[in-house]
Amino acid sequence: MMGFPSARREATRLCNELQDYAGKVLEMGRSDRRKVIFAAKMGLALAVVSLLLFWVDLFPELSQYAIWAILTVVVMFEFSIGATLIKGFNRGLGTIFAGAIAFGFAKLATLSGPWEKVVIVASIFIIGLVAAYLKLYPTMLPYEYGFRVFVMTYCILMVAGNRSRDYTEAIVTRLVLIAVGAGVCFLVNTCIYPIWAGDDLHRLVVRNFRDAAASLEGCVNGYLNCFEYPSRSRIVTYEAFDHDPLHTAYKSVLESTNREQTLLGFAIWEPPHGRYKVFNYPWRNYVKLSGALRHCVFMVMALHGCILSEIQAPPEQRWVFASELERVGVEGARVLRELGDKVEKMEKLSPLDILQDVHEAAQQLQKRIIDQKSQLLMSSSSSEKQQPKELEDSQKLCRGEDEDKRETVVDVDSSAKSEASAQLWSSFIAGATKVEEDELKKWGCHQSASALSLATFASLLIEFVARLQHVVRSFQELSDKANFKNP
Amino acid sequence: MMGFPSARREATRLCNELQDYAGKVLEMGRSDRRKVIFAAKMGLALAVVSLLLFWVDLFPELSQYAIWAILTVVVMFEFSIGATLIKGFNRGLGTIFAGAIAFGFAKLATLSGPWEKVVIVASIFIIGLVAAYLKLYPTMLPYEYGFRVFVMTYCILMVAGNRSRDYTEAIVTRLVLIAVGAGVCFLVNTCIYPIWAGDDLHRLVVRNFRDAAASLEGCVNGYLNCFEYPSRSRIVTYEAFDHDPLHTAYKSVLESTNREQTLLGFAIWEPPHGRYKVFNYPWRNYVKLSGALRHCVFMVMALHGCILSEIQAPPEQRWVFASELERVGVEGARVLRELGDKVEKMEKLSPLDILQDVHEAAQQLQKRIIDQKSQLLMSSSSSEKQQPKELEDSQKLCRGEDEDKRETVVDVDSSAKSEASAQLWSSFIAGATKVEEDELKKWGCHQSASALSLATFASLLIEFVARLQHVVRSFQELSDKANFKNP
Repeated sequence: MMGFPSARREATRLCNELQDYAGKVLEMGRSDRRKVIFAAKMGLALAVVSLLLFWVDLFPELSQYAIWAILTVVVMFEFSIGATLIKGFNRGLGTIFAGAIAFGFAKLATLSGPWEKVVIVASIFIIGLVAAYLKLYPTMLPYEYGFRVFVMTYCILMVAGNRSRDYTEAIVTRLVLIAVGAGVCFLVNTCIYPIWAGDDLHRLVVRNFRDAAASLEGCVNGYLNCFEYPSRSRIVTYEAFDHDPLHTAYKSVLESTNREQTLLGFAIWEPPHGRYKVFNYPWRNYVKLSGALRHCVFMVMALHGCILSEIQAPPEQRWVFASELERVGVEGARVLRELGDKVEKMEKLSPLDILQDVHEAAQQLQKRIIDQKSQLLMSSSSSEKQQPKELEDSQKLCRGEDEDKRETVVDVDSSAKSEASAQLWSSFIAGATKVEEDELKKWGCHQSASALSLATFASLLIEFVARLQHVVRSFQELSDKANFKNP
Repeated sequence: MMGFPSARREATRLCNELQDYAGKVLEMGRSDRRKVIFAAKMGLALAVVSLLLFWVDLFPELSQYAIWAILTVVVMFEFSIGATLIKGFNRGLGTIFAGAIAFGFAKLATLSGPWEKVVIVASIFIIGLVAAYLKLYPTMLPYEYGFRVFVMTYCILMVAGNRSRDYTEAIVTRLVLIAVGAGVCFLVNTCIYPIWAGDDLHRLVVRNFRDAAASLEGCVNGYLNCFEYPSRSRIVTYEAFDHDPLHTAYKSVLESTNREQTLLGFAIWEPPHGRYKVFNYPWRNYVKLSGALRHCVFMVMALHGCILSEIQAPPEQRWVFASELERVGVEGARVLRELGDKVEKMEKLSPLDILQDVHEAAQQLQKRIIDQKSQLLMSSSSSEKQQPKELEDSQKLCRGEDEDKRETVVDVDSSAKSEASAQLWSSFIAGATKVEEDELKKWGCHQSASALSLATFASLLIEFVARLQHVVRSFQELSDKANFKNP
């Protein structure tokens, strides 16, 4: 009786967990109807095959091979049409090869009289060895499943043929049943609410553009707001970031490579459908566009690296270039979003240069950096006394999160501001020298590197803009090849 | 007769290609014996199973289910022990669940008399639907294969049981044959030259360290030698780099995530073996260590980005910090190689601080940057007349590839050199201002940003060093948990 309440508590907990899980599973179907439809199609295909098998039951010599039809459906039925076609192709090829080779070895086995079983076992050993070895060759990877089918079919045909004393019958009946399974699978999957891998690939590329835009904005804002991660040491493993939207956004772009390749592999097998009306639709160009985008996103990752960095520029330095940095971020994100929309709507670019604004913004950022330097040269003996107040100001400024305040501070009398920033720049250049003696002895302090960190951020951002033109070029290539409509 | 020579040529070409391919395939086996052994084991397992089936042939009621044993071997036989165990687990679980549920529905079907077949088809539809739906839930992904087995087994048991009028017999005979196949598979795979996923994971982590070291050195040298890629526009797609050893080295580290996760998934299933003598061996820490290393390699990628960048620092600027940059690169690579060796030999770190030298090198790089700045402030009106000669010198220096010459040039009279570099730094700061008016108007020129590019390179390198300590910390955690021996 002692353990009763605790057992009951345990049971309640288990119940709650199961309820939670069931809720999440149902939610999955609610958020993506296609998953429910796919599952229903799978059930339907199996039901149809088993009905057919009951009907075939009238011919007993066929029905004991029922397993072949069911096996084919279970193995071939995939989420997208392209994947089903590839599986079917593998299955067909593997089966036909196995049938042909089995036919040859069967002749040999029947000719060898008392050694028949020895020949069969030896042939199975050799076929198994060769297939398992070839399967490991890298370019054979897409046909891995075909090799499995081949080996399995070969072995079973030989064993079963030997038992029933009729290799030809063994081979033909199985081929027929596999064809039945494949036919049902293909009909159900294409005729009822087809799910295309091409659609998924298209959507994935669009989502990558949006994620890239969001993460760029997030990085620039995070840097200017001096966002700090609570525990910087956790960055060594990725898991720590799973709930950081900024990180997940660019990570999903970077990690979509595999998924893109998989979807591309399926999409090129799919016949023209929906909005993709030509044979040899340029799916590869979608992946290429996404690759060019990823090349930009590497820069976003490097920008994020500046936020995570061990070595940080102090807030007051960051704010010297605040409005310029922000503008580049905003314009860059706008370009990415516009390109994403164009891909989604399958529209060509308008004749206006989409990059003009972002290039202007980047130019201004450059100009501002140069201004700072020349001011420094002119006023290299700038007054030391103002520093404490200025510093305090900029620290306040950095902490202030509301847009209004930021606007005002940035737009204050520019002469006063430029003086302040000239001074900041001078501390950026000269400041480190003062602390050199005592501070540089211990590694903990990265005074000079911290000043460099701001320069790094700016130059990475400029590099990001430079790389944008490759994205635009890739988009133009895609829009030409895929015959996007004019806007 | 016209087409004869061309057909012959075609045949010769095909022959040559086949020969090439065969050569490559044989080469694969020569470079990794394990692949040949794996293939031979697979052949052996199939031969053993078919021998068993011939023996079982004496019991005709069993032998028609031969397919189950062969299917099990073909599907379960994987390269590593861990993968075989997981497949076996999935297969077992799927089969047992399917058997249990089939048992229940079989009772229901026999009770429903004339509606028996309707109950069977309906149950197949429902089971297929539910399994296909649950399979799509993300956390269910590792059990995907188990779901397939479950659905297939259930369907076949119901159809076959209905045909033979004996559900229990149908279920039991199949379970026995699956057990036979799984047993053979497991015995052959573990008893003859076992291939462990854990070993592969261990080796992969070691290789990652070496690749990271090589790519770091390659980046620093490439930057200092002003290596330029022939066509910079091709960088937008990765394929263009497939033959660049520098890129492949860090890319293989960055892209090993998936492989690590796969191997980890297999390794944690493997019993203690060889050098890994405890249960619950900390395989996860190997992956964690590799994750920390990858965090460093992101910096190497960013360094490579500086080489590929649209915006380049002129050679003479790069050479100001040549010896410091080079030393950080060499010391960083040394640390990585040493850690890689320690992981390979499973040795703890010696009590000396492994990072001391690389930290000193990074400190010197910082110090040098600061020196440059202070010199600039002292001699901001540096003589313009020397510039052409100095520039020419440093350009020569940059082109010279031989180590000797480089040594000499770096070690020339330091006062002359520091003057030269002070001047370079001044051009780095002031130079951009002069061209501002006419050059900044068109976007093509990135004068100021190009000066920043060098600062970016240095600060990325310093950040790389800062991140090294996470790698060392991860290594210490691993060496404690895995009980590495003392050196």
